[in-house]
Amino acid sequence: MKTQIAIIGAGPSGLLLGQLLHNAGIANVIIERQTPDYVLSRIRAGVLEQGMVDLLREAGVSQRMDEEGLVHDGFELAFDGRSEHIDLKGLTGGKTVMVYGQTEVTRDLMHAREAAGATTYYSASHVQPHDLKGEQPYVTFEHNGETLRLDCDYIAGCDGFHGVSRQAIPAGVLKEFERVYPFGWLGILADTPPVNEELIYANHERGFALCSMRSPTRTRYYVQVGSDEKVEDWSDERFWDELKARLPAPVAARLITGPSIEKSIAPLRSFVVEPMQYGRLFLLGDAAHIVPPTGAKGLNLAASDVSTLYRILLKVYGEGRTDLLEKYSEICLRRVWKAERFSWWMTSMLHRFPDTDAFSLRMQQTELDYFVSSEAGRKTIAENYVGLPYEAIE
Amino acid sequence: MKTQIAIIGAGPSGLLLGQLLHNAGIANVIIERQTPDYVLSRIRAGVLEQGMVDLLREAGVSQRMDEEGLVHDGFELAFDGRSEHIDLKGLTGGKTVMVYGQTEVTRDLMHAREAAGATTYYSASHVQPHDLKGEQPYVTFEHNGETLRLDCDYIAGCDGFHGVSRQAIPAGVLKEFERVYPFGWLGILADTPPVNEELIYANHERGFALCSMRSPTRTRYYVQVGSDEKVEDWSDERFWDELKARLPAPVAARLITGPSIEKSIAPLRSFVVEPMQYGRLFLLGDAAHIVPPTGAKGLNLAASDVSTLYRILLKVYGEGRTDLLEKYSEICLRRVWKAERFSWWMTSMLHRFPDTDAFSLRMQQTELDYFVSSEAGRKTIAENYVGLPYEAIE
Repeated sequence: MKTQIAIIGAGPSGLLLGQLLHNAGIANVIIERQTPDYVLSRIRAGVLEQGMVDLLREAGVSQRMDEEGLVHDGFELAFDGRSEHIDLKGLTGGKTVMVYGQTEVTRDLMHAREAAGATTYYSASHVQPHDLKGEQPYVTFEHNGETLRLDCDYIAGCDGFHGVSRQAIPAGVLKEFERVYPFGWLGILADTPPVNEELIYANHERGFALCSMRSPTRTRYYVQVGSDEKVEDWSDERFWDELKARLPAPVAARLITGPSIEKSIAPLRSFVVEPMQYGRLFLLGDAAHIVPPTGAKGLNLAASDVSTLYRILLKVYGEGRTDLLEKYSEICLRRVWKAERFSWWMTSMLHRFPDTDAFSLRMQQTELDYFVSSEAGRKTIAENYVGLPYEAIE
Repeated sequence: MKTQIAIIGAGPSGLLLGQLLHNAGIANVIIERQTPDYVLSRIRAGVLEQGMVDLLREAGVSQRMDEEGLVHDGFELAFDGRSEHIDLKGLTGGKTVMVYGQTEVTRDLMHAREAAGATTYYSASHVQPHDLKGEQPYVTFEHNGETLRLDCDYIAGCDGFHGVSRQAIPAGVLKEFERVYPFGWLGILADTPPVNEELIYANHERGFALCSMRSPTRTRYYVQVGSDEKVEDWSDERFWDELKARLPAPVAARLITGPSIEKSIAPLRSFVVEPMQYGRLFLLGDAAHIVPPTGAKGLNLAASDVSTLYRILLKVYGEGRTDLLEKYSEICLRRVWKAERFSWWMTSMLHRFPDTDAFSLRMQQTELDYFVSSEAGRKTIAENYVGLPYEAIE
């Protein structure tokens, strides 16, 4: 079996890259370890940057998002008994974010790929990339009891943090950067109307809380919990009580609770590998970097990697510009590091840390106070939240 | 002996407050533990914010500063092999800083006080404020073998971190916030021409370095050293070698060295007490708060406390607005905390810490990279460096 681009992983990055390439006439095959239902069952991000929204439109998969997605012009930062509005649109000259769940993005991309008739192998096992440094790399995998071999020009590793792509790179090649935060996020999904039209990020002495949503009838709320907490110890009632305790009183008073549809605890981690390329294998999204979810950068960062690799491949196949392949990693990493910084900053400013003393608590509050009270400070928050611009590929 | 305001400490804060009050017809007496020569021998800050420059002009003591001081429109931030210019004037709508040594400010204020014929007791010992919560506070001290008592309306504690004023407040009243940094600054004063027209703050893998100056012929350079380092172990030659190793190569190449006039190691500390008032005693400057020197905020913060207390006292004596006295602390602290934040941020971004790992080093470099590459980011640096505005007293 032969294609131009072998894509490992049918999450949103793999599917989006596949769709863009397909539209451009570049053949690709996606190999995914899980079933489509499993992929769709993962509850993840819900805030899309302008750049990702534009990329989904460019890929021709934006119809439902444009109809059902919620455009947010701003968000709220609650701390020290106050709640301050960050006017994203006003501060960035018109940029906004789109609230539309990762699950829905994935579903739309799956439908588009099906309609396009492009090949996807779900439930593939023993996926293994080969000959990455050679001119003819290939991927082997098992599917329905058969061992298959996919020859290709390039391999896109879109298979996440635990995927095989990064692991296929020999030891010693990648430099790893990591920070594990001493807490997690307990998240709940519920069919209740959102407590606020916009997201609320809250710094509270009991810990961080976030009021988010997926639609006008489906909410996603989070509270910071200790790294050793177990989801079984959190009844819905306990969750709602804790959330209310961390929100500004007027917000807590109008919070509508309901039974959880999903409830889980996610750890918080910052992680980057350098470089994001090894021979003809390119790492995208979580395969190369993880951000803590504060700031909603994870999926968006994957989208900017997709955009970069897509635009490079366009020039490789269209103009023979293979020189650009060597620039993939450095172009991606410039934006990755800035998003890592913003995610680390938002996390550092909004959470309680075990070693927070009186001075560092005041620094946290003063940092928030300064940044929201200064026009320039608010702009730094806004321009990062809507997403720093994608670099042109030239 | 009776006066309106008893001022403890004849450093720049005490002298500046005394001069402003004297000009406004409010009687004051300064009591200082040291001799004038000792006060003038302390080598301290050298960068004055616009607000302090304006206050010195208002006090009528700016003639020599305006003739000899160096107006700086910007400074350099060197990191990761680059050097980036922060255009203070352009980024703040015309604000600048003035390079003029604290020693010179103090000298000018001493001369003005002498010319005004206002009373200062130097070499006073056993200085003690009394009856701070009563309506008739007083200060006792010994001078030339005599025990003196100075009755007053209010007491201004301008006697620094180790002074008696803060210690005169009963235990349990003040809340202390403190951070001691795990390194110090080794500073050298030399009669050499500055290596650069503007200051250079350098983040280097060997540690922080700063190129500063006092005049076109007198330089002040610093290198970060371990907390346990001794000044005796640092010959001039070793200092210059270390400084050159931390500066961008073109800067190091043009550095002119010379014998040190002064050489000392200063610890770095963040410290704040709340409140800054106890009855009729008001704490100003280092008596209430210390900042690490990165960002040049120490003397400037003392000046804004002076401005606040001076303007309150004008309204107390002019309009009977004694209600304003209770606002002194909260007005000062809003600005103090923001300057503490900026000094902590500059310190955190520019120094090597013993626990700096690969991830935090990248966060430091990316934070610098983001802030200098974003217009909004540069503005946050500039508006803090020239000094946030003083609050109006109404």
